[in-house]
Amino acid sequence: MIKPYLKQALATAAVLLALLSPAPAFAQRQATWIWYPGDYEIWLGNQMQNRRTERGSFFPVFWRMDSHYALIDFHQDFDLKQAEEVELRAEGQYNVKLDGKPLTGAPQRLTVPAGKHRLNIKVYNQAQVPAVFVRGKTIASDGAWLVTFEDKEWIDASGKTSDQSGTTWLTAGSWNFNDPQALPSAFKLKTEPQRAASVSCTPTGQVVDFGRETFGYVRLHGLRGKGQVALYFGESREEAMATETCETLDRLDVDQTQKADRLTTLSKAFRYVNIRPEAGVSFDSVSMLYEFSPVVQRGKFRSSDDQLNQIWDVAAYTMHLNTREFFIDGIKRDRWIWSGDAYQSYLMNYYLYFDTPTVNRTLFAQRGKDPVTSHINTIMDYTFYWFMGIYDAYQYTGDKKVIQQLYPRMQSLMAYCLARRNANGLLEGLAGDWIFIDWADGLSKKGEVSFEQLLFCRSLETMALCANLMEDQAGAAQYQQLATELKAKIFATYWDASKQALVHSRVNGQPTANVTRYANMFSIFFGYLSPEQQQQVKQSVLLNPEVAKITTPYMRFYELEALCALGEQPYVLKEMKSYWGGMLQLGATSFWEEYDPSKQGAEHYAMYGRPFGKSLCHAWGASPIYLLGKYYLGVKPLTPGYATYVVEPNLGGLQWMEGAVPTPQGDIAVAASPKQLKVKGAVGTGTLRFRSRSKPSCKGAKIRAKGNGQYEMQLEKGREYVVTYQALTK
Amino acid sequence: MIKPYLKQALATAAVLLALLSPAPAFAQRQATWIWYPGDYEIWLGNQMQNRRTERGSFFPVFWRMDSHYALIDFHQDFDLKQAEEVELRAEGQYNVKLDGKPLTGAPQRLTVPAGKHRLNIKVYNQAQVPAVFVRGKTIASDGAWLVTFEDKEWIDASGKTSDQSGTTWLTAGSWNFNDPQALPSAFKLKTEPQRAASVSCTPTGQVVDFGRETFGYVRLHGLRGKGQVALYFGESREEAMATETCETLDRLDVDQTQKADRLTTLSKAFRYVNIRPEAGVSFDSVSMLYEFSPVVQRGKFRSSDDQLNQIWDVAAYTMHLNTREFFIDGIKRDRWIWSGDAYQSYLMNYYLYFDTPTVNRTLFAQRGKDPVTSHINTIMDYTFYWFMGIYDAYQYTGDKKVIQQLYPRMQSLMAYCLARRNANGLLEGLAGDWIFIDWADGLSKKGEVSFEQLLFCRSLETMALCANLMEDQAGAAQYQQLATELKAKIFATYWDASKQALVHSRVNGQPTANVTRYANMFSIFFGYLSPEQQQQVKQSVLLNPEVAKITTPYMRFYELEALCALGEQPYVLKEMKSYWGGMLQLGATSFWEEYDPSKQGAEHYAMYGRPFGKSLCHAWGASPIYLLGKYYLGVKPLTPGYATYVVEPNLGGLQWMEGAVPTPQGDIAVAASPKQLKVKGAVGTGTLRFRSRSKPSCKGAKIRAKGNGQYEMQLEKGREYVVTYQALTK
Repeated sequence: MIKPYLKQALATAAVLLALLSPAPAFAQRQATWIWYPGDYEIWLGNQMQNRRTERGSFFPVFWRMDSHYALIDFHQDFDLKQAEEVELRAEGQYNVKLDGKPLTGAPQRLTVPAGKHRLNIKVYNQAQVPAVFVRGKTIASDGAWLVTFEDKEWIDASGKTSDQSGTTWLTAGSWNFNDPQALPSAFKLKTEPQRAASVSCTPTGQVVDFGRETFGYVRLHGLRGKGQVALYFGESREEAMATETCETLDRLDVDQTQKADRLTTLSKAFRYVNIRPEAGVSFDSVSMLYEFSPVVQRGKFRSSDDQLNQIWDVAAYTMHLNTREFFIDGIKRDRWIWSGDAYQSYLMNYYLYFDTPTVNRTLFAQRGKDPVTSHINTIMDYTFYWFMGIYDAYQYTGDKKVIQQLYPRMQSLMAYCLARRNANGLLEGLAGDWIFIDWADGLSKKGEVSFEQLLFCRSLETMALCANLMEDQAGAAQYQQLATELKAKIFATYWDASKQALVHSRVNGQPTANVTRYANMFSIFFGYLSPEQQQQVKQSVLLNPEVAKITTPYMRFYELEALCALGEQPYVLKEMKSYWGGMLQLGATSFWEEYDPSKQGAEHYAMYGRPFGKSLCHAWGASPIYLLGKYYLGVKPLTPGYATYVVEPNLGGLQWMEGAVPTPQGDIAVAASPKQLKVKGAVGTGTLRFRSRSKPSCKGAKIRAKGNGQYEMQLEKGREYVVTYQALTK
Repeated sequence: MIKPYLKQALATAAVLLALLSPAPAFAQRQATWIWYPGDYEIWLGNQMQNRRTERGSFFPVFWRMDSHYALIDFHQDFDLKQAEEVELRAEGQYNVKLDGKPLTGAPQRLTVPAGKHRLNIKVYNQAQVPAVFVRGKTIASDGAWLVTFEDKEWIDASGKTSDQSGTTWLTAGSWNFNDPQALPSAFKLKTEPQRAASVSCTPTGQVVDFGRETFGYVRLHGLRGKGQVALYFGESREEAMATETCETLDRLDVDQTQKADRLTTLSKAFRYVNIRPEAGVSFDSVSMLYEFSPVVQRGKFRSSDDQLNQIWDVAAYTMHLNTREFFIDGIKRDRWIWSGDAYQSYLMNYYLYFDTPTVNRTLFAQRGKDPVTSHINTIMDYTFYWFMGIYDAYQYTGDKKVIQQLYPRMQSLMAYCLARRNANGLLEGLAGDWIFIDWADGLSKKGEVSFEQLLFCRSLETMALCANLMEDQAGAAQYQQLATELKAKIFATYWDASKQALVHSRVNGQPTANVTRYANMFSIFFGYLSPEQQQQVKQSVLLNPEVAKITTPYMRFYELEALCALGEQPYVLKEMKSYWGGMLQLGATSFWEEYDPSKQGAEHYAMYGRPFGKSLCHAWGASPIYLLGKYYLGVKPLTPGYATYVVEPNLGGLQWMEGAVPTPQGDIAVAASPKQLKVKGAVGTGTLRFRSRSKPSCKGAKIRAKGNGQYEMQLEKGREYVVTYQALTK
């Protein structure tokens, strides 16, 4: 009854095996801890996501938490010129087989003889993730090793072992754990001490201001006495002072006669901490231990507009705070991996860190394991963002290996979606499906919502792309056909020629008259509209004040992206300055979950019916990073991994701008003014595209006129190009 | 693409919810630790099965080990006459909600007000199984609580929570952990000290004989010195002496100047232990800590035949040793849960302990979780024994609750099987399928093996039965139709009228000429044969010496059962005395994995190409327990849980026999001689059936003559009946 899916899974396994190239035998390789792909990510995700508290109570997720496989077999084949001693470590109880023969005990060193040999290590660990580290002169545990959770190593009554022909192997997962002594389970984010910016005394204790939004552990110095210290955390001063309604708090039990320093046990988000010791407890001073992921900020942006520069800086800091073990939504409240939020972080990441491991970890942790029993985070749209995240990951990184590892889970998640289509072949919310779209008052989730179908269609295109990569031709054809049919159905169902827009939904077989921005703006950058339709949608929806406004940075991300894709950079620049600049004017030191300029004072902090429910540091608030990198500096890959790319600077009214965009192999630096463009790319082959009033020039490069003031120039890797031109704007 | 299965799963969830009766509000209930059904069983199974070692090396299973859900929500609704204080414990990090509102922290006590209320406890535990214990005056955590791994408790932007309409709840799992202080994860089997039977000194140390096969930890008394002590375990003296080839061993590192007692760390099976301390290490004496499951032996059997009594006793001891956290295969080597082995243990259990918790634990641990990626233990036949075990469990215990909990996993496992049928609708081994049947030389596993189809058919019947119990009418009809069609196909394909038997297999579309015992004997007690076919099979297969003999007690179980079902008790009695008596004559103190009377001396101990590879204490060796209870004492349920049952004593040539058969509510005692029958049942309504030469009599009971010397009499619960008759045998 689950025949097609299983057949596909088997086909996939076969394809994967065919794709795996043999390990290079004599190359010097970096040994690293390895595990079953996704297992460490799921395990670490459980740890991280279960650190949420609400006013001191544990607050776990409401979707299924999966676990690692408790028993894993790792193996690799070698062809050694000479015998080699290897050191071997495993996290868990393990055994070792050389050419199928068990070695005694659990050796930490062994010699692999010259010639062709196979090393198997089988590890059991219920509490942590089974992992191994192997290092010899040429032998090294890495992503070329093969792993399985079911090795089917039968013996018959005569003692003969089976050929394991029914075993499915995947390539191992890994990160950067290259030290055999540092167990993967012991991983912790980095920390560094930081001082308070200011301290004010209150009748009941102290309120400490760390100067800006931050994250970590509070340290009380010289703590002494007997009793409790209450710590009330605030992203705003108001929140820290509101001891009855602040979102997070901590209580330390103190019982010591000697002064000592003491850290809070759970890391928290805060700018202000209101510290109230009971009578009989005292402390000297307060500092903090800032906790962070040591990702490297490679993306850069500076311009003639100081406010815009500040927006970029605060956006980058907002991203930094929310880039942790995984890309999380916000640091104060959920600290969870929400797929819709993470999807935007991926895109921002490509213009800030290009930290592919954090993307991959987040994709694995979100997806968990089979069977699929609900949408990702229980939200239908969030399932689709997951697929779209893989599409983008391949486009930006060109990394096929992670797709090999993810493809079986992509197939089963898509099978889940396909099985939930209604009689019209469309998706509507079934019991247990959360249709999210956006936080917006009165937004209808009823019936067949156009936005969901659009994301579904894009997800099917992602499946077709990945099926092709996996050489799953049958799958590719099937997914492509489904996507094509669905796209046609979307336009037949929702496109309203009189409104010049896609309508919001169809309920009981009738398209509604309601036009919202969501499906319309996505259809632009998905490339689903004709040029005429694009212009219609721009006027009738995007620039139409009568269509309900978007109040979350989350959906502003896409709204502004759509406008940028239509060349409206000057307009978007004004919008960014007004919206993100508006938060800065209110004193934001990081960008918020939601921002409604019409609200006043502490009203801004309320959400979810709670006075301080809103997150003031939300990853989705950082989208200027992405918009400025992709649509102003104008850098984007044309083929996977920046093998080819385009640079199409658009000043959008700025006098000058300069910056860098990271790629898998190095950065692409861009500087632009209305008179000069400077570009240098460390990767692939680029195309510089620009519009000039006069004939441009560039020493040693050939500029092709494309007509209508448009020019193109090829960019070779590693060369700096300086173009003299006269910017032509619309 | 996995539509039908998912639809079924959803339908099931709905059915389950409908079936769940509300918790009795004011009854005094036994509070116990509860968990998600199957989770503790899977977790404990991982622990137990990973204790296998082979000559000191860790030897894990080669199938997928699943894990518990790391995050579980427990809830129960109450309607209290008066407010009630409850104590609350959880194994893991947890929060508590009363009527959906979170309480502060992780309270260990709370007050539930009078009236209608809901208590939710949500527990996260990665390393152990999330479990809770709640106890108040009337409130008690037990199997009536509901649990889910995915509570979908959404809130919207205004703070409103969802109705959880998409959440699937199951009733909680539990065992007998009624002490709030004793965490489920701390469970250990019971132990008691035992002395050695004899000790002999060797040039290198001591060989200790514990008198019979046993299991546990060896204790060295007065251990002192610096160096290693090697312990070589043997089920035979030969094995313990064979330090290079014995199957299990242990090494203790000693470094102590004061004498001390020391236990080995892993429990082992042995009768003999060869203890060899290095020079410089000494000990005074040796004892052991016997480890066992405190199951109560309720089944009894005694007869005029002393050898048969000894067979029963040794079989009961063999069962006792192999009844541990779960029903395992054998205590020396695998110590794993093999489905084919466990299936027989279930049946023996119904005539020895009637310990339903051990049956249910074993069923859950075997099945693991979805998705199904291979057959149970990777063996096709073992998948089917799992289904059959559920069929029998319901028949013997009448316990519907465990079927409610298992049904979704039954559906998905059956979906896996159905998806693997070939174009003929039959099953043959695909890559990764182990076709086991039995350890027998030259047994063909090729093509469509009749035995596998027969078990498949019985499994479909089990599905139909359980679907009916779950009120899944569509499922029941579908499974029944599949079973009916398959049965017809089996006889059309394999029944060979000239051979008067089912042939072994069909290869490349051609039935083979080979006749084996397997399918033929199962078809008898499955009731698949007409009376004529039964007699034909008896002569042409079962009693035909030209059909390859069975050498494992495993398949002898079914062979003798088939003969008993045909009334061949005298023949089977002789076979039992010869086969099991044969092992006793060779000094067996427990029954073996395999026994071939033609072998000599230590040849008996060899298997799997290793001189001591054979297990000398194998659960499947204990089948006389089952045969004597079911076919001699003649007790079996007619309707689930012994609501009605039959007692049909068959002396099989014995002068007298007496015994007891346990049931869910008490025992059924039977004593028989050729002149008198005595029966007393503590359960349901029985039918005593017997054959008498003369008109029988029983004080105060009405005996119905059924013709042909056959009589029947109704048995009321709790009454003793003494029947005077003259036994009529064939």
